[in-house]
Amino acid sequence: MWLTLRRADFRENWNRLLEIIDVPTKIQGAIRDLSQSGKTIGLVPTMGALHEAHASLIRQARQENDIVIVSVFVNPTQFGPSEDFSRYPRAFEEDCQIAEAAGTDIVFAPAASDVYPEGFQTYVSPGDKADRLEGASRPGHFNGVATIVLKLFNLTQPTRAYFGCKDYQQLKIIQQMVKDFDLAIEIVPVPTVREADGLAMSSRNRYLSLPERLAAVCLVLGLRAGQEVWANGERDPRKLQAIVQNIVTAQPLARVDYVAIVDPETLEDAKPSQSSYLIVLAVYIGKTRLIDNVLVEK
Amino acid sequence: MWLTLRRADFRENWNRLLEIIDVPTKIQGAIRDLSQSGKTIGLVPTMGALHEAHASLIRQARQENDIVIVSVFVNPTQFGPSEDFSRYPRAFEEDCQIAEAAGTDIVFAPAASDVYPEGFQTYVSPGDKADRLEGASRPGHFNGVATIVLKLFNLTQPTRAYFGCKDYQQLKIIQQMVKDFDLAIEIVPVPTVREADGLAMSSRNRYLSLPERLAAVCLVLGLRAGQEVWANGERDPRKLQAIVQNIVTAQPLARVDYVAIVDPETLEDAKPSQSSYLIVLAVYIGKTRLIDNVLVEK
Repeated sequence: MWLTLRRADFRENWNRLLEIIDVPTKIQGAIRDLSQSGKTIGLVPTMGALHEAHASLIRQARQENDIVIVSVFVNPTQFGPSEDFSRYPRAFEEDCQIAEAAGTDIVFAPAASDVYPEGFQTYVSPGDKADRLEGASRPGHFNGVATIVLKLFNLTQPTRAYFGCKDYQQLKIIQQMVKDFDLAIEIVPVPTVREADGLAMSSRNRYLSLPERLAAVCLVLGLRAGQEVWANGERDPRKLQAIVQNIVTAQPLARVDYVAIVDPETLEDAKPSQSSYLIVLAVYIGKTRLIDNVLVEK
Repeated sequence: MWLTLRRADFRENWNRLLEIIDVPTKIQGAIRDLSQSGKTIGLVPTMGALHEAHASLIRQARQENDIVIVSVFVNPTQFGPSEDFSRYPRAFEEDCQIAEAAGTDIVFAPAASDVYPEGFQTYVSPGDKADRLEGASRPGHFNGVATIVLKLFNLTQPTRAYFGCKDYQQLKIIQQMVKDFDLAIEIVPVPTVREADGLAMSSRNRYLSLPERLAAVCLVLGLRAGQEVWANGERDPRKLQAIVQNIVTAQPLARVDYVAIVDPETLEDAKPSQSSYLIVLAVYIGKTRLIDNVLVEK
């Protein structure tokens, strides 16, 4: 089934219709036609609930490719049994409007039963990079992420795929998969987009009450403190870790899941001799789990 | 590095040179050029030590595709620590002659260090189909198989890929992976090729001493007994299993690893009501482990 939305009149130079494709075999057919014409394809994989950070990924894809595909799929296999799959925000009409305004050609929004039909059983198993941090807190999460991303790559055959740096570990795992599986796809990291107070944009920010939203700035305050002491010459990972964690825990509504100082490539604990660290954290604000990170380097 | 062999003069209508490519990035470049020209590509993945059964795969690929690629790679990740990786037969010059005579355009023979560079960590994890039979006897085997096959698919972008039915479980796992990962590749099963006495052709037959080679016919004798009692109406999987196993164990040089009667799709234990069974076995002849199977259906 193909659905077609009328184009938004507000966007200049917009001479396409946004196509919405919801069946995997249909997107394969559309891609076959496109790739024979030699057009470049940019893919922005999303779980919907689009916001300005997604728009920034889409705009960059628009600048760099002939065709821009945005996938909208809340992937059940990357949620744990006690996680927020069922209440994850879904806003498909608004997603299409944001996607179109940012320059999307095709929204691919498959049904879970088409993505994971009965008998589905083959998964991607990412290695060491997936064992720590989010992987330790969310067992199986990155198997689900890597599997759906590989499937989306195979279905849409992108030239380039765009991933936000807020999900830094995800970005590194996808880059490793592309290398290990010999995929001819360029992974484009896009800088984290932040609210005015510094909070990293996330669909999960919609869960926050007003007091929680105000409290959530503690994540970026912690990261900034870490940046500052790094800039002042502190190189001991344990001291950096303690400084960041102390800032976050000073916020009564915050409960730290982890604060870690890691090697930006291997994601293992950083050694004091390294020229760069990733400061990365996961924090509950009330019941909402948020993540953020910052790279510090000489 | 590209090496070029002179063409074999004995083959009529042979107006190409066999190209040997040993670097993954080179095959990607060659494939990019080919796929833009719209040519169909047939892939025959092998571990080398080619024999007549491989030639049969290659000839079928030759008939059905514009370009035929034979990969020759003894894949370390599908061998267990106590298995025969180091002594697995290697005969590259002879392989190229057989491949060329059967109609190969490109032999892709990468080095292990290029296929699995330092830091490699992402694997395919096949599901239920991989847990039993060979998977139970050879833990991790099918993770290695599925991973290398996915990599070869990504590197060579085949229209069709050819797999022998002797490795029936491997065939089903690859078909499942192709479905689950949305790969636009047709998997072509090719019937098992047998020696005059019925022994399924296998590179591992080279390990057999003359007495062992004569004894090895017990695998196919067992399977044929199973076929015969099936044809005579026996539908009890346990009785079929016992009949096959008794025939095999009558051979003093044979030691059964497993003899199983399974559902040809799920590879789970067959139920008496099914319209078809796979009779499948793994048997040591001396130190050499051989496998074979036959499908019986109404």
